[in-house]
Amino acid sequence: MARPLTDIDAGRDHLLNLVEQLIRERGAVSVTLSELASVAEMSAGNIYRFFDSKEALYEAIAERWFEPKIAIMEEVVASNVPVRQKLFDFFARRFSLMFSNFAADAVLFTSYCELGEEHFEIVRGYIDLGDHYLAMIVADAIEEGYFPGLSIDQSVSLINLMVQPFCDPKMMAMLGHSVTEEKLARIITAIFDGLGSDSKGLIEERDVKRTPELVS
Amino acid sequence: MARPLTDIDAGRDHLLNLVEQLIRERGAVSVTLSELASVAEMSAGNIYRFFDSKEALYEAIAERWFEPKIAIMEEVVASNVPVRQKLFDFFARRFSLMFSNFAADAVLFTSYCELGEEHFEIVRGYIDLGDHYLAMIVADAIEEGYFPGLSIDQSVSLINLMVQPFCDPKMMAMLGHSVTEEKLARIITAIFDGLGSDSKGLIEERDVKRTPELVS
Repeated sequence: MARPLTDIDAGRDHLLNLVEQLIRERGAVSVTLSELASVAEMSAGNIYRFFDSKEALYEAIAERWFEPKIAIMEEVVASNVPVRQKLFDFFARRFSLMFSNFAADAVLFTSYCELGEEHFEIVRGYIDLGDHYLAMIVADAIEEGYFPGLSIDQSVSLINLMVQPFCDPKMMAMLGHSVTEEKLARIITAIFDGLGSDSKGLIEERDVKRTPELVS
Repeated sequence: MARPLTDIDAGRDHLLNLVEQLIRERGAVSVTLSELASVAEMSAGNIYRFFDSKEALYEAIAERWFEPKIAIMEEVVASNVPVRQKLFDFFARRFSLMFSNFAADAVLFTSYCELGEEHFEIVRGYIDLGDHYLAMIVADAIEEGYFPGLSIDQSVSLINLMVQPFCDPKMMAMLGHSVTEEKLARIITAIFDGLGSDSKGLIEERDVKRTPELVS
């Protein structure tokens, strides 16, 4: 991971620290390049050496947020542990990292979440990347006989729904200490032991039993 | 459910329709009683016959939102179906109602969600009531041998986490068509077939395998 920084990299890094300071001070409000140049005591022309547009700046902010999570996912996917452990590590290690970021500075964390919502087109790519890694683990699990009757895509979607509060940083911030690693371990276990059994009967029965006046 | 409306009830109902119209037109901004009186062409004094404070107005808005959901929960808890079906119905029927409300008017739905976030102290009581009904179903399930090793409270908390995207209206609005009843049925089945197995090993293993530099 660690590599020698070029001058441009170092400059970008310094500017991103300043952006973080701005976000910390005043929340998730938009930062313009000329404003950032002024805070950095840099000419408006000079700042374009580091970020050639406001979009490039926001992409760099997102990259910095997601980089350690990607490192975790890559490490977990490459690790040599049973698939059940792998799926747990995949979510638990990112959860643990996010939760400690949240605990260290809840206001800054929440502001980053809001920035992410406002620039969801950038975040989207990282979510897709996460699904890609998740699909690799799920494919191994299916090969071992888990999630019978479910495709990789169906399993990925169901697993994401079942662990949503451990992945969505805003939800995590809202639920606080009611999301814990112990609960995540229980849920991952339930996913392996229970996901894939036939469940069509539940929907058919519901439609039979439902009283007509409550059908909208 | 249906009962003859008193004049006061009918007046409150009319005023709540006007509030809904205001929310529809301009989003989740605060509505004052004097403003509502003016829209209703009513004297400021007269409106106090219906709502004696702004808080009372917001409580009435919440009551109207939650009333059909409470009716569903009461009916499901009282129903004579297997416990697995009961838990599915408990979530699926409210999900189906909320999703059709969302589909009918996504903007109004989102505004109600925002109002709920702003007045969370009112919403809190309804969430607790939902947990109370859920605990009744869970107690039956535990009596039948489900969720081994888990208390009622632990099970309620885990189940709520696993079906969060089907209960949280804002999450539902965000995820849209990736939340479906078919997926909910799969998850409820996984809860019954998988929740309660021992999962301590996952956390112990994780702590062994984790590379030190990524521990924050």
